[in-house]
Amino acid sequence: MKILVLNGPNLNLLGEREPNIYGDNSLSSINEALAKKAAEMGFETAFFQSNGEGAIIDVLHDARRDCAGVILNAGAYTHYSYAIRDAIAAIKIPVIEVHLSNVDSREEFRKTSVIAPVCKGSISGFGKFSYDLALIALAKLLRGE
Amino acid sequence: MKILVLNGPNLNLLGEREPNIYGDNSLSSINEALAKKAAEMGFETAFFQSNGEGAIIDVLHDARRDCAGVILNAGAYTHYSYAIRDAIAAIKIPVIEVHLSNVDSREEFRKTSVIAPVCKGSISGFGKFSYDLALIALAKLLRGE
Amino acid sequence: MKILVLNGPNLNLLGEREPNIYGDNSLSSINEALAKKAAEMGFETAFFQSNGEGAIIDVLHDARRDCAGVILNAGAYTHYSYAIRDAIAAIKIPVIEVHLSNVDSREEFRKTSVIAPVCKGSISGFGKFSYDLALIALAKLLRGE
Amino acid sequence: MKILVLNGPNLNLLGEREPNIYGDNSLSSINEALAKKAAEMGFETAFFQSNGEGAIIDVLHDARRDCAGVILNAGAYTHYSYAIRDAIAAIKIPVIEVHLSNVDSREEFRKTSVIAPVCKGSISGFGKFSYDLALIALAKLLRGE
Amino acid sequence: MKILVLNGPNLNLLGEREPNIYGDNSLSSINEALAKKAAEMGFETAFFQSNGEGAIIDVLHDARRDCAGVILNAGAYTHYSYAIRDAIAAIKIPVIEVHLSNVDSREEFRKTSVIAPVCKGSISGFGKFSYDLALIALAKLLRGE
Amino acid sequence: MKILVLNGPNLNLLGEREPNIYGDNSLSSINEALAKKAAEMGFETAFFQSNGEGAIIDVLHDARRDCAGVILNAGAYTHYSYAIRDAIAAIKIPVIEVHLSNVDSREEFRKTSVIAPVCKGSISGFGKFSYDLALIALAKLLRGE
Amino acid sequence: MKILVLNGPNLNLLGEREPNIYGDNSLSSINEALAKKAAEMGFETAFFQSNGEGAIIDVLHDARRDCAGVILNAGAYTHYSYAIRDAIAAIKIPVIEVHLSNVDSREEFRKTSVIAPVCKGSISGFGKFSYDLALIALAKLLRGE
Amino acid sequence: MKILVLNGPNLNLLGEREPNIYGDNSLSSINEALAKKAAEMGFETAFFQSNGEGAIIDVLHDARRDCAGVILNAGAYTHYSYAIRDAIAAIKIPVIEVHLSNVDSREEFRKTSVIAPVCKGSISGFGKFSYDLALIALAKLLRGE
Amino acid sequence: MKILVLNGPNLNLLGEREPNIYGDNSLSSINEALAKKAAEMGFETAFFQSNGEGAIIDVLHDARRDCAGVILNAGAYTHYSYAIRDAIAAIKIPVIEVHLSNVDSREEFRKTSVIAPVCKGSISGFGKFSYDLALIALAKLLRGE
Amino acid sequence: MKILVLNGPNLNLLGEREPNIYGDNSLSSINEALAKKAAEMGFETAFFQSNGEGAIIDVLHDARRDCAGVILNAGAYTHYSYAIRDAIAAIKIPVIEVHLSNVDSREEFRKTSVIAPVCKGSISGFGKFSYDLALIALAKLLRGE
Amino acid sequence: MKILVLNGPNLNLLGEREPNIYGDNSLSSINEALAKKAAEMGFETAFFQSNGEGAIIDVLHDARRDCAGVILNAGAYTHYSYAIRDAIAAIKIPVIEVHLSNVDSREEFRKTSVIAPVCKGSISGFGKFSYDLALIALAKLLRGE
Amino acid sequence: MKILVLNGPNLNLLGEREPNIYGDNSLSSINEALAKKAAEMGFETAFFQSNGEGAIIDVLHDARRDCAGVILNAGAYTHYSYAIRDAIAAIKIPVIEVHLSNVDSREEFRKTSVIAPVCKGSISGFGKFSYDLALIALAKLLRGE
Repeated sequence: MKILVLNGPNLNLLGEREPNIYGDNSLSSINEALAKKAAEMGFETAFFQSNGEGAIIDVLHDARRDCAGVILNAGAYTHYSYAIRDAIAAIKIPVIEVHLSNVDSREEFRKTSVIAPVCKGSISGFGKFSYDLALIALAKLLRGE
Repeated sequence: MKILVLNGPNLNLLGEREPNIYGDNSLSSINEALAKKAAEMGFETAFFQSNGEGAIIDVLHDARRDCAGVILNAGAYTHYSYAIRDAIAAIKIPVIEVHLSNVDSREEFRKTSVIAPVCKGSISGFGKFSYDLALIALAKLLRGE
Repeated sequence: MKILVLNGPNLNLLGEREPNIYGDNSLSSINEALAKKAAEMGFETAFFQSNGEGAIIDVLHDARRDCAGVILNAGAYTHYSYAIRDAIAAIKIPVIEVHLSNVDSREEFRKTSVIAPVCKGSISGFGKFSYDLALIALAKLLRGE
Repeated sequence: MKILVLNGPNLNLLGEREPNIYGDNSLSSINEALAKKAAEMGFETAFFQSNGEGAIIDVLHDARRDCAGVILNAGAYTHYSYAIRDAIAAIKIPVIEVHLSNVDSREEFRKTSVIAPVCKGSISGFGKFSYDLALIALAKLLRGE
Repeated sequence: MKILVLNGPNLNLLGEREPNIYGDNSLSSINEALAKKAAEMGFETAFFQSNGEGAIIDVLHDARRDCAGVILNAGAYTHYSYAIRDAIAAIKIPVIEVHLSNVDSREEFRKTSVIAPVCKGSISGFGKFSYDLALIALAKLLRGE
Repeated sequence: MKILVLNGPNLNLLGEREPNIYGDNSLSSINEALAKKAAEMGFETAFFQSNGEGAIIDVLHDARRDCAGVILNAGAYTHYSYAIRDAIAAIKIPVIEVHLSNVDSREEFRKTSVIAPVCKGSISGFGKFSYDLALIALAKLLRGE
Repeated sequence: MKILVLNGPNLNLLGEREPNIYGDNSLSSINEALAKKAAEMGFETAFFQSNGEGAIIDVLHDARRDCAGVILNAGAYTHYSYAIRDAIAAIKIPVIEVHLSNVDSREEFRKTSVIAPVCKGSISGFGKFSYDLALIALAKLLRGE
Repeated sequence: MKILVLNGPNLNLLGEREPNIYGDNSLSSINEALAKKAAEMGFETAFFQSNGEGAIIDVLHDARRDCAGVILNAGAYTHYSYAIRDAIAAIKIPVIEVHLSNVDSREEFRKTSVIAPVCKGSISGFGKFSYDLALIALAKLLRGE
Repeated sequence: MKILVLNGPNLNLLGEREPNIYGDNSLSSINEALAKKAAEMGFETAFFQSNGEGAIIDVLHDARRDCAGVILNAGAYTHYSYAIRDAIAAIKIPVIEVHLSNVDSREEFRKTSVIAPVCKGSISGFGKFSYDLALIALAKLLRGE
Repeated sequence: MKILVLNGPNLNLLGEREPNIYGDNSLSSINEALAKKAAEMGFETAFFQSNGEGAIIDVLHDARRDCAGVILNAGAYTHYSYAIRDAIAAIKIPVIEVHLSNVDSREEFRKTSVIAPVCKGSISGFGKFSYDLALIALAKLLRGE
Repeated sequence: MKILVLNGPNLNLLGEREPNIYGDNSLSSINEALAKKAAEMGFETAFFQSNGEGAIIDVLHDARRDCAGVILNAGAYTHYSYAIRDAIAAIKIPVIEVHLSNVDSREEFRKTSVIAPVCKGSISGFGKFSYDLALIALAKLLRGE
Repeated sequence: MKILVLNGPNLNLLGEREPNIYGDNSLSSINEALAKKAAEMGFETAFFQSNGEGAIIDVLHDARRDCAGVILNAGAYTHYSYAIRDAIAAIKIPVIEVHLSNVDSREEFRKTSVIAPVCKGSISGFGKFSYDLALIALAKLLRGE
């Protein structure tokens, strides 16, 4: 079973961008660690990052064929991309929303997630460990629940 | 005279995605039927679908050179893409807004169309037949009105 | 099978009232042409216009007995008549909302249609041809869909 | 002493219209039962239903001359008819607002009653029994309070 | 030249209804005095009052044929009747909005006039004398401005 | 069959607190009269009043075991206690909302009831008689409806 | 008896400023004509114009000593000066609000008058004749009503 | 090190209350399983549930003395209890917000969390497994991060 | 004459909780100093603190029997407890609202006080000295004003 | 040390203006009493009143040179003068906001204070004694804090 | 050709007031440098600063006679002075809006400029260099565009 | 030192698109002139235009490596692209927002810039000269300020 880890806009700059908010790990180091943990749990992983809304939708569509679930950090698209929302609703596999920071404690506009209502669940505020928690949650969901 | 039929995000999944809302025809079968009807009415057709906002704008720009009108289902971009709105306003040819479902009877956010004010007219709620109606309307407009 | 064509407030002044927005055809000439087209398509037609909200509701109620569908231009009642909305929801036959002008490109209050959520579909912006399109759409719906 | 039972738009379709919400009794059967109960309590009754806002106001005005109180189900006019509100405020006799369904548990727009502030009291959610309760309440008010 | 004096919902109760707000003159006594003054100024007058939105629109439509201007107290319809607004915009003759009371000093909903933007001018707060002022203003407008 | 009569914050001061709004009967005298009427109708009654949100929820929970229905005047908690709302939704027995005064004719914040959507029905504005009406309504519901 | 005619910001530019909206009469020519009419009606007049909010308040305060009423065109202060509102409420003499243009048909912000609730009445849309109407209205008020 | 697991209003009814939303496990069975897992991870646990806002605040205060962190499901208080928010901000230990259901996909009012901005992180939508994830997250935080 | 000093949620943590905002005095030291000052001014004092909304209401109710006035810091309940507001309105004795910090300079939600409209007066921003000022103000009120 | 007592628009009418709200003392008598109290406490005082926003700002600017603190009743400017707000923020000396009446219990617009966030503290509702309390508070602030 | 450089409320304190936001240059040193640059570019300059809204309007009016353009920093009046907006619209010469700080990155209320819609262009965020840019822009406009 | 000139959606149509708003220069002619001026000032320039949000973000990211600053006209993305906002905040180099037209004088939605708060400064309304001003401003910033 394969899990897609999908990161949205500006997450390629992780480790460099505002480290006080987002931590100092690069996205690739986070991905590597995650791949390893997933492997130990018996899951294959695929990783994708894009700054483009359309590309994220394309990848979500493709995932419905060969992935069992998605861990999605949609970055700022979280707050306004009804197109990504529709993509999540359109595919059958479970999608879990993650955020590195506690988005509710930041600017007003970050309190709205237009994708949350169609995700399976939501995890935010634990830094890179948010991804680990999402992996554990997704594993649980996929294995039987 | 050529007509562009332009479909936005997630419409490539037609037939598969939430068939109770969107029907069970694939986009290609809709397009084929539409191409045939257009041909009978004496129009050439071009078809394009993209999940990307930028790509949709690019295609709208190109259409101003070789198309006489556009049938546009902008999907979820309908509700927030001021960039697509500006593209429609920037090209001189008539654009007709179509929706498969009756968007007003669904979620609150679907009641706002930011592109409607710059389209020539709007048709929604008739499933794939919305496209046929748009074709008839556009033909009428292009032939003399 | 009979189709009711129902026009609301101020539409009796068509052709005379702000012709730059509403065109210069009178309502009776539009109705005559429509009756002819409907007849060619095998439909009987009934026509009614009223400036009164109650009268429009009465006619909608009556239509449920002897009409197969309704083409409704509710005029300004579109924007606030929850009573007409309830009437549409109460009768079983399909109702199609039409507007001559592109209501979304006009005053802010015209962007809200309280009747759209209970109509089958919506067509606006094509002048008197909006009625023709509604007729075609209704014919399609009534014949099999 | 005479009591007016006044029903607004679409209530003539009771029993037929969305029976899961409004029940399957016709308005006339409700009225008959109510007339009987009122008679047992020593009250005369008058019944009126109209889909027209103006007609409802006319009847409210007339009631001030020969009725001691009004039981009013204003239907959808409840939510926007400031003209009916003014009519209720203008006549001296007590008016009791009734609704068959629990309006607060339905669409957002049904949560606002513009007539409630000028009614004596409000009863909703008990189906046709809402009228019986209003009758009992009005009897109490008229007999001495 | 004929002037239409058109009164909307509940104004038939003038003199009886909340006299502390609306004064204790009946509508007919106001109309008589107004007719006399208009006659002295060389104007014919027609008077109409209705509680029905549709009837008010019908009368406005008719006025465009034989009246030179309208003095309109639309009562509570002032605050939500976009249908009356459209009727005023549709006829060519000037319409002057009057109110007996200072509507801005009352309930919040009375601060919005949806008809004001299409009227020639607005007069409120002078009791029955508001009509006299409107007559003087209309006379001025009709005679040469 | 037992009915719980549950009163919320400040209702213990009835008779003393703003008697022009709430009447001059004490809560205990209202309860006694109500108990008597209920007994005549064959119902047992339990009475509880608390100023505490948690205590009200506790009592609602307990009621699901030994009561057949609840008459609830939630006082000011009506306007913001989503926790009480959840409690009502969580228990299976019918809950009827009552208010002594016509809450819609008072301050703006009193027009919102967050508990109404999950109650069976709502009665307000009849002073202490609101409870009697609720008792009659509940009896009707419990006996067969 | 003396009447104060008080004009607010930018009205000194009348005749020069946007004549399509405000007409082409200068403020002094309007004032002269008004003084003459007032004299014929037996009133003395005082005129004041200022672009300053404080100066307008000072003059309103002074007017309470030697003027019987005020005709006030508060210009743009109409829409936000709660300080002028308080000044009008503080003095005992009647103040009549006038506007040259129909403010409701212009920008959104011009639809709010914070001073209207404390004025005696309001007149707008008749160009310089708005002042004449206000004079007639004020005369009526001061002479006995 | 001790962890407090604190549950708010109506969570004592878990397993019984709307099982389609909240699952069919009782709170005590969830707590027992959680205590066991925590023990395996080397943590002591304390459990508390209350329907009272004040009691929840009291327990949060006490926790600052002998607990290293808190797992908090504040139930409906999540949406309006600024008092609980202040309690979380006042104590130094990390608090993790959990919800059984995906609150964002339910009623509008459930989209606002007034406590989220002062919590360390947030987890929702995984049923009883939300608590396990919170435990894992808290363990991570307490052990070194 | 006795004065009640009533403190709401989280104020028991004073001195410990966010000392940069609330200062470093404990509530008991503030109370002691206040009791002493009150004694010098000839007033008895009673002190109460609770984190529970219901308990605060209970104490306010009791105060109406043996206290002459109340100094109330309602903490976060200030912003949403309509139940406490009703309690203040229900008792006859004057209540003075105090806050340690300048609540208007903090988060948006702290700018709304739902209890202020029913308090006698309001003092905020002077740290523990806010209580002293309230004592002086209350003494003035109780002694003759 | 000198204290500036600064009063804004319409406060010069104190004693005369709506005495039921503002009391019947003139501003000069209030100022005299305050000067005397301040002298007893060892403070010099300066008094200024203006109806002009600019003049109030000028005086605030000057105060930064020779005054130690300001007692400011900004009247209606409280609700919209961001310019006065900026002036308060620009000078270094403490400013205390006072109001005679309990502004929160009056019109909606009076509930917003745009200057409160930059003032040191706020006192309202104690009539002329509000100034005394502000003086005591300012003395405390200036002498030690 | 003469250019007016007009500064609004609190800008006289430049260099002294919150230097971290507004820089440490005094207004006179900014003006001198600007005068010199303007002279080099062949423009005469006039400088004016006032804290009064009326004075700013007066100066704008006068500028229409002898100035070719205006550089305006309206300070906090930017956010609410519709009177200054009307003054700008009333004079024919171009007005350029400048701000020292990036107003959009500060408090919410600073994001609204009521004068921007009637200015020629807008420059903000470059400290004192904002004025230089405005001078360059105005020179360009005046010389030929 | 290199400066990136980055243009967003629809700006490739400059000169052709609505020339009354945007002028009749093509983007390439604007870019050429700008490159020349920059060269004279000793700056290298890079130019990029895209209709895609993701592509704009990608280019902003790349710019952080080899550019000293950015001149950005984000077109309609200005009004809703929080993803571009995050990209600007993530890179360290200064970004200056430019607009050809005075966006505040156009449709309501154009008054909001979600990127302004993270840009260094903002320039709008000067047609193609807006870019020149931005170049001058950026040069100033990069050279020392």
